[in-house]
Amino acid sequence: MIIRINDNNFLDNFNNPLFLCVISSIETTLYYPISGVHKDFIRYTPAADVELVFLGKTLSIKTPPLDSSLSPSPAVISRACISLLNIKNLHTNAGSFVKPKIPHILVDEKPTGRIELGKAMSNSKELFNLGYLLGKNLTAESLIIGESVPGGTTTALGVLKGLGYDAEHKVSSGSINNPHELKIKVVNSGLSKVERRELFNILNAVGDKMMPVVAGIVKGFKGNVLLAGGTQMAAVLAVIKEIDRELLKKVAIGTTEFVLNDKNSDLIGLVEQIGDVPIYGAKLGFEKSSLEGLRKYCEGAVKEGVGAGGLAVYTLSKGISNEKIREEIEKNFSKWYPNTQR
Amino acid sequence: MIIRINDNNFLDNFNNPLFLCVISSIETTLYYPISGVHKDFIRYTPAADVELVFLGKTLSIKTPPLDSSLSPSPAVISRACISLLNIKNLHTNAGSFVKPKIPHILVDEKPTGRIELGKAMSNSKELFNLGYLLGKNLTAESLIIGESVPGGTTTALGVLKGLGYDAEHKVSSGSINNPHELKIKVVNSGLSKVERRELFNILNAVGDKMMPVVAGIVKGFKGNVLLAGGTQMAAVLAVIKEIDRELLKKVAIGTTEFVLNDKNSDLIGLVEQIGDVPIYGAKLGFEKSSLEGLRKYCEGAVKEGVGAGGLAVYTLSKGISNEKIREEIEKNFSKWYPNTQR
Repeated sequence: MIIRINDNNFLDNFNNPLFLCVISSIETTLYYPISGVHKDFIRYTPAADVELVFLGKTLSIKTPPLDSSLSPSPAVISRACISLLNIKNLHTNAGSFVKPKIPHILVDEKPTGRIELGKAMSNSKELFNLGYLLGKNLTAESLIIGESVPGGTTTALGVLKGLGYDAEHKVSSGSINNPHELKIKVVNSGLSKVERRELFNILNAVGDKMMPVVAGIVKGFKGNVLLAGGTQMAAVLAVIKEIDRELLKKVAIGTTEFVLNDKNSDLIGLVEQIGDVPIYGAKLGFEKSSLEGLRKYCEGAVKEGVGAGGLAVYTLSKGISNEKIREEIEKNFSKWYPNTQR
Repeated sequence: MIIRINDNNFLDNFNNPLFLCVISSIETTLYYPISGVHKDFIRYTPAADVELVFLGKTLSIKTPPLDSSLSPSPAVISRACISLLNIKNLHTNAGSFVKPKIPHILVDEKPTGRIELGKAMSNSKELFNLGYLLGKNLTAESLIIGESVPGGTTTALGVLKGLGYDAEHKVSSGSINNPHELKIKVVNSGLSKVERRELFNILNAVGDKMMPVVAGIVKGFKGNVLLAGGTQMAAVLAVIKEIDRELLKKVAIGTTEFVLNDKNSDLIGLVEQIGDVPIYGAKLGFEKSSLEGLRKYCEGAVKEGVGAGGLAVYTLSKGISNEKIREEIEKNFSKWYPNTQR
């Protein structure tokens, strides 16, 4: 049930993780349709995603976020895994439009800015240092780190391109139709403002605040880290490699089958360019679901996010079947979405 | 070097703690001189205290806070212990005027209000629930919980009195002169607004936001908890007892000798009224210090705060001498206070 690519037995000694989702909003998403998140939800999506994971219900909006095809946020997968294995979780705000109404670790209050103007942030190095200090002070045995950053595949493209990787048409999308040309245009516009293509200059221009924070946590934390996400985590890997390539030895990527099966992106091709890092993909069996919203994942809707893939990989690795994960989502669905037809 | 009162060998199995300082500001302190904190620092004190503990330097103000007699914040003791034993630490904001410029757990952005008006907060029950969820998601083996709440001995008096304890003239003070009569006046005024003296009504009127958050953490956390502080932690004990008296079995109080030696307060007399809870006091030997600011602690300045006593108790329990703690403070003092004469 777990697709294993470049496996090094990472999962065999991966126990008692803390799950930490790092969230950020990107101002560019208010001006350009780069994100698959439904526009009515985009301001609230990061906050509501981590509320659902932490509490089992959303507070900032009435229901968990929906994508533009009305499929549910991948946070429903994350929450199911958290519930099934009682995984401890604590989330990190690296600048979301709306703050989660749950106890969470605040790192930055200001959202990521306008990447098309090369003005994503001015403090990526400071955010890396704050992430490092945070990572040093986490007490867990291991970490699963996810993200909720609408528009984050565009910043992933920007950072990968800025660092010299062949990344065009390789980043994923939360939509069935991946707006590659728009993403390339936005990113090229932002990168044109970068005078010297050094890591923190690139992040400041076209990155998002999740990236330096996660890279810092990985550097500061003593244990192993499962980076839970799709091509956004490939960009994080590239950032980590620039900082200290030895760190790649303690990380793996955990994602969904939907990312790995996607014809419009290439996570494996990106990771191969970066380094020798295992990729695990959770097979979720959503084609068998009674819920149209989950079946749409198999057609390319949503695919990944909020650590869903990594949490599902971890849950499967502990002997819980994907039927159990699916049933847990289906059981709660009418509570989460009382007005949604099946 | 540890004063032991009602000892039950709590410290023998107390290992690998996370230190978590819960901070809040109180609006009343802007109107009435109930706090020993220097008035130029009071808005910044909670933020600067946890910055010093977490980073080893302050960011929100140039130097660590000083009390009205120009003695240093007890955060210097806390930081010394954190450094000597590499204690992991992550702090919690329950409403401070100024947010710490470090990654920290945000629970409430709004400070505690006007206790003299009986309007400390409106959400104490919600804060308890958020603290509970936070406690459930902490991965450490044990916890040391401190506080930085200027004016917090007045809220301690209010809550203890509201719950029916004999507390007048028993709460401590960060000043050499303890303004008992002013505290009683403020608290009586606030309590007169409480129609039904039930726990959350009392907290809402005259408590501070640190209290329900810490009580919630204690309820949610699976391991043992050393409540690090003076008479403010007696008020937390009283809150915990109202919620579930069984919880008293997993807590102890860790404080300084300065609180225990204080003729103007009575921590032991307060705890005896509440329950069978051990109290540990760190003997710090500051009378031997080369620093006037530390010697003044022996005359009753500051006494306690920011978890200093509990952290020192823990550090002493692990075989580190109080000379080492004092030397660590003295070594850093000219860096922390470059313009202060010895």
